[in-house]
Amino acid sequence: MSTVVQQLDHTHNPTARSWVISANAGSDFPIQNLPLCRFEEAGESRVGCGIGDRILDLTAVAIAVELPESLRDALQYVAGGQMRPLMMAGSYAAKALRHALFAALSEDASDALQKQLKPYLRAQVDTALVLPVKPYNFSDFYSSIHHAARIGALVRPDAPILPNYHWLPVAYHGRTSSILASGTSFHRPRGQVKTLSGGPEYVSCRRLDYEAELAIYSGAQNALGEPIPIGSALNHVFGIGLLNDWSARDIQFWEYAPLGPFLGKSFATHLGDWVVTADALAPYWTSPPWSEDGERKLLPHLDDADMRSKGGLQVRVDVLIRTAKMRAEGIDAYKISTSNFKENYWTIAQLVAHQTSNGTNLEAGDVLGSGTLSGPTDDSRACLMEFTNGGTVGFDLPTGEKRTFVEDGDEIVMTGWCDAPGFPRIGLGEVTAIVLPAR
Amino acid sequence: MSTVVQQLDHTHNPTARSWVISANAGSDFPIQNLPLCRFEEAGESRVGCGIGDRILDLTAVAIAVELPESLRDALQYVAGGQMRPLMMAGSYAAKALRHALFAALSEDASDALQKQLKPYLRAQVDTALVLPVKPYNFSDFYSSIHHAARIGALVRPDAPILPNYHWLPVAYHGRTSSILASGTSFHRPRGQVKTLSGGPEYVSCRRLDYEAELAIYSGAQNALGEPIPIGSALNHVFGIGLLNDWSARDIQFWEYAPLGPFLGKSFATHLGDWVVTADALAPYWTSPPWSEDGERKLLPHLDDADMRSKGGLQVRVDVLIRTAKMRAEGIDAYKISTSNFKENYWTIAQLVAHQTSNGTNLEAGDVLGSGTLSGPTDDSRACLMEFTNGGTVGFDLPTGEKRTFVEDGDEIVMTGWCDAPGFPRIGLGEVTAIVLPAR
Repeated sequence: MSTVVQQLDHTHNPTARSWVISANAGSDFPIQNLPLCRFEEAGESRVGCGIGDRILDLTAVAIAVELPESLRDALQYVAGGQMRPLMMAGSYAAKALRHALFAALSEDASDALQKQLKPYLRAQVDTALVLPVKPYNFSDFYSSIHHAARIGALVRPDAPILPNYHWLPVAYHGRTSSILASGTSFHRPRGQVKTLSGGPEYVSCRRLDYEAELAIYSGAQNALGEPIPIGSALNHVFGIGLLNDWSARDIQFWEYAPLGPFLGKSFATHLGDWVVTADALAPYWTSPPWSEDGERKLLPHLDDADMRSKGGLQVRVDVLIRTAKMRAEGIDAYKISTSNFKENYWTIAQLVAHQTSNGTNLEAGDVLGSGTLSGPTDDSRACLMEFTNGGTVGFDLPTGEKRTFVEDGDEIVMTGWCDAPGFPRIGLGEVTAIVLPAR
Repeated sequence: MSTVVQQLDHTHNPTARSWVISANAGSDFPIQNLPLCRFEEAGESRVGCGIGDRILDLTAVAIAVELPESLRDALQYVAGGQMRPLMMAGSYAAKALRHALFAALSEDASDALQKQLKPYLRAQVDTALVLPVKPYNFSDFYSSIHHAARIGALVRPDAPILPNYHWLPVAYHGRTSSILASGTSFHRPRGQVKTLSGGPEYVSCRRLDYEAELAIYSGAQNALGEPIPIGSALNHVFGIGLLNDWSARDIQFWEYAPLGPFLGKSFATHLGDWVVTADALAPYWTSPPWSEDGERKLLPHLDDADMRSKGGLQVRVDVLIRTAKMRAEGIDAYKISTSNFKENYWTIAQLVAHQTSNGTNLEAGDVLGSGTLSGPTDDSRACLMEFTNGGTVGFDLPTGEKRTFVEDGDEIVMTGWCDAPGFPRIGLGEVTAIVLPAR
């Protein structure tokens, strides 16, 4: 794997501290993180960097000409207020920006620089974030074997895992028009579903589900016709964030044969506000769960010694529900599941290598969804289809309410962070949305 | 269906003639057509209108301030050189532009106006056209029952047509990064395919195929969460063009279960250069092939009396092949198939209504592919998978060459036009590309 994203350096030092005090006391946004976001100010798009409970307005800083040249250079790609130019510029530019921000926000930064930057810090709670980027392409993988096995058992009890599953990371293309920023409510979809009595009907979805996923954002693009070798796949990864792949199970199960999911997925997909850049991930790589299994056969273009030893990534993702009643009664969100991407059967490098193995070109800002991040244990089932065994086993909430699928007024919250022994926890923020009744 | 696109008026008068002489003698671009295209001039994008063997540079005309106000008003959306603003503006704006161009290019136009416009006419043969628009979303339907039945018979002999097929137009989302302009060569993809002996291998595609389709371009967008009723679906159609949905059958058949086509389709998709706007289509609507079948049941949101009587569209699409040897020996392209969209099981209005029935939002310039336009007869099988019965029955070319699938150096040409008794033939141009060897 690429040394660009793999190398540990002083920016990953667990004892480093920021002059932004809120970053130092167990914040998900310590100085080792420095995730990026986007917001609008007076109708103009700005790129920001999270530090503690603040956002540094990078676009405003970029045009403050009195800054040190090294910082101004590193900020050039975000001066226009969009994240895509930085994504396009490739992993060295993203790494250079993170390093420059680390120096500028470190407690070792000069008093003069701190004084210059302070006016550009704003409170996260007062800032409405928008989509990090509007992706041109969205593909969604099926890369957790635990998810595939449980869903497979529901629809094909005789053959839950199909023969191709072990050889390639199965995926489909999704839609980008309905990708929404975290916090944007949406209406329960209507759609064609099969009735028990026979013919189909066009009704409000009765089996609305979420899927907790990672969004992998592509950076530097490859030319059409030129696959990205697995050994340099991570050079094309700009960063990661959270993704909720809303799924209307009743619509999906009637429509999906033989060409896959379509309207069962296309009504809404939420992206988290924050992108943790690849450079910040260095301490959190680990061995994939099958790395001890010398028997796992892979075709050479999906195999790599570095990936076999360090292709897994330690990202924990929790799913919580907050019903209308819970909000009204001031009850905390209820945690449904906890999973970790390190359990995943297919690695990020494999997803990128497979996606481009036929010559497909990635464009900067494309989203590769990991697929539902379910793990082997019952508490790590990261969608309700699994968690309630196809809607047959409901669960109780602290309010006395019961759920098998998502109901109107429910808010689904996903939170995530990277964590590894000896290193600080760095957060991906959250992705959240409330379901409104069908129109 | 919408009166906006259905109404016949003087612009469809078969005897109308243009002062651009080449438009009047059997050209596919008579004054009744007025299709749009895009090209680049000194690095700047321009929108053009086809008339005879010429292109009128609409963007240049739009900024020629001495023009009559009505013409200038109609041209406002293409003044920036892109087609998307016109698409976004909705069907009235597109209709107004076609009507203004009809008046300006009619032999009844004033000598003064003709003299003003003449400098902005350019030869089509000297103009390299680019993609009409870079779509944000591409969905591809499976709307010919003849195609579905033949492909189904190859992969599921016991159940070629699945139960959902009669109730909804099956579709999947494709990729937009690899959508190419007509004439752009591309490399044969490599990919993972199943070997006869057992495990898969990563090799050059051995079963490269085309699919002749219509591209349906969306115009005015709907808000997320607000389905487009079938009765106004055609108000959201900007126009139609040609589409070649290249398909690597060996890659596709190994990967597609259970989530549908992915890398078997994502390496290249070609769009034709020209967009025939919805307003030009009025004379060519006809009854769908099943309109006499009172028994065909449809759910109300996919049904409409107007569509039952006039939902079909008479568009003929021919597929031709020109091998490297044919080019070298100066032999004309060989016609493989001839099909007509009027045979299609699902109508354009139904595709739009279904696509948005879950609240999905169309964005201006989105492409809805019709799916392979195969008809009931053997000569109307619009992909090689059908034409050679899964690669088992090859066919001979005039050079003595034989084909079962597309070989390196082959050029696949698709041409199309609308035709109806009493009206002139109006062309969609062609979509063509040469396949280069795998890298």
